[in-house]
Amino acid sequence: MTDQPSYPITPTNRVKRAHARAAYDHDSVHRILDAAALCHVAYVIDGQPYATPTMFWREGTRLYWHGSAASKMIKSIRKGVKACVTVTHFDGLVIARSGFHHSANYRTVMAFGTARLLDDPDEKYAAQVAMVDRLFPGRTDALRAVTPQELKATSFIYMDIDSAAAKQRSGTVADDEEDYALPIHAEVIPIHTTLGAPIPCPRSHPDAQRGADLDLYQDGAALELAFSQAYEQTFE
Amino acid sequence: MTDQPSYPITPTNRVKRAHARAAYDHDSVHRILDAAALCHVAYVIDGQPYATPTMFWREGTRLYWHGSAASKMIKSIRKGVKACVTVTHFDGLVIARSGFHHSANYRTVMAFGTARLLDDPDEKYAAQVAMVDRLFPGRTDALRAVTPQELKATSFIYMDIDSAAAKQRSGTVADDEEDYALPIHAEVIPIHTTLGAPIPCPRSHPDAQRGADLDLYQDGAALELAFSQAYEQTFE
Repeated sequence: MTDQPSYPITPTNRVKRAHARAAYDHDSVHRILDAAALCHVAYVIDGQPYATPTMFWREGTRLYWHGSAASKMIKSIRKGVKACVTVTHFDGLVIARSGFHHSANYRTVMAFGTARLLDDPDEKYAAQVAMVDRLFPGRTDALRAVTPQELKATSFIYMDIDSAAAKQRSGTVADDEEDYALPIHAEVIPIHTTLGAPIPCPRSHPDAQRGADLDLYQDGAALELAFSQAYEQTFE
Repeated sequence: MTDQPSYPITPTNRVKRAHARAAYDHDSVHRILDAAALCHVAYVIDGQPYATPTMFWREGTRLYWHGSAASKMIKSIRKGVKACVTVTHFDGLVIARSGFHHSANYRTVMAFGTARLLDDPDEKYAAQVAMVDRLFPGRTDALRAVTPQELKATSFIYMDIDSAAAKQRSGTVADDEEDYALPIHAEVIPIHTTLGAPIPCPRSHPDAQRGADLDLYQDGAALELAFSQAYEQTFE
């Protein structure tokens, strides 16, 4: 494990509570990130913190997201703003014998860095492609081409990860030892996030066919499996 | 609609993009909050923003969460710190005929205020009860009693909502008018978050019975329906 590339542990990302549940290596951090498409970005404007939900993706140790979801951020971002990108998978409810030990199973990553605006048109085009293909491998080739006007109207933000921490809880109830003798029911309820049956656009062209770019997205599939596998197909 | 109680619209919470998707009335905001148990709290320490996932609940126009999930925050919270509590339901993937119009269906609330530490022991006890019963109506009555030591070791944070905004996207693909004539497949894929089969604690007492407090949490139930109904049973 010591040979694994890892993010540095700093006062910002060091997990203070339940640190046995923490990991800083790239593999642990990236696996949680790449199984998701939705993150919450924290940033500050005039002393007011915001947590904004947005779609994101990773390339190497850089995160990207679409600027429109953070329009308040755009104005102050020219010179770079500190940000925290957090991804959380909510995996289960932990129902214990005491109120104190009720908990949740989850996997989360907090990634820290400075968010900046993508300026170069070629890099913006590549980001537009990656944003779609990261979810739907190869889909850009099947689409109506991106126009220069669209590219101009779109802002992308990127953040090189300076530090990051993964944290998780899994498994069963952890009660006080003496409480196991009590006749109180305790359990874990898993939470599943899955895809429903696709709903074709009501204005679909008669010749339009669902392509291989959507093969991972079948009725009943686990959302994070589709996201992880799409990520691998596109970037690995 | 003008008679509905509503949060004030300020420069902080005013939705700037796609404002037709925005709402500020209590009912719209609270419905999204009460269908969730997980939020992301944004706050700032020494100029560094954090987005921390934590379990939360609402009482009136006040939000509560467990302090352990924000231990970095606790130290600076005595005098109150500005915070943003965000809840997001990820409802679907919107797969369009152009990269530009790919999108997501979602419901989100961003709530703004000053987070403070709950100090009064009676209020802390009430928070401990509400945190459990908000999810599992009446469960506290069935549990081993809260000890003074536990109460002392637990921090609760509360935030009166100064302003808030709900925003959502729903429905089908919204492409450029001329693109509907193209033979490109487009669809919406719904995302479902559901409960799995409960896994009893392997050390369960033989007399322990699953009680009515968990009746809403059945295999296959929609997570947000369980949360919303539990909320109603406990608080309405």
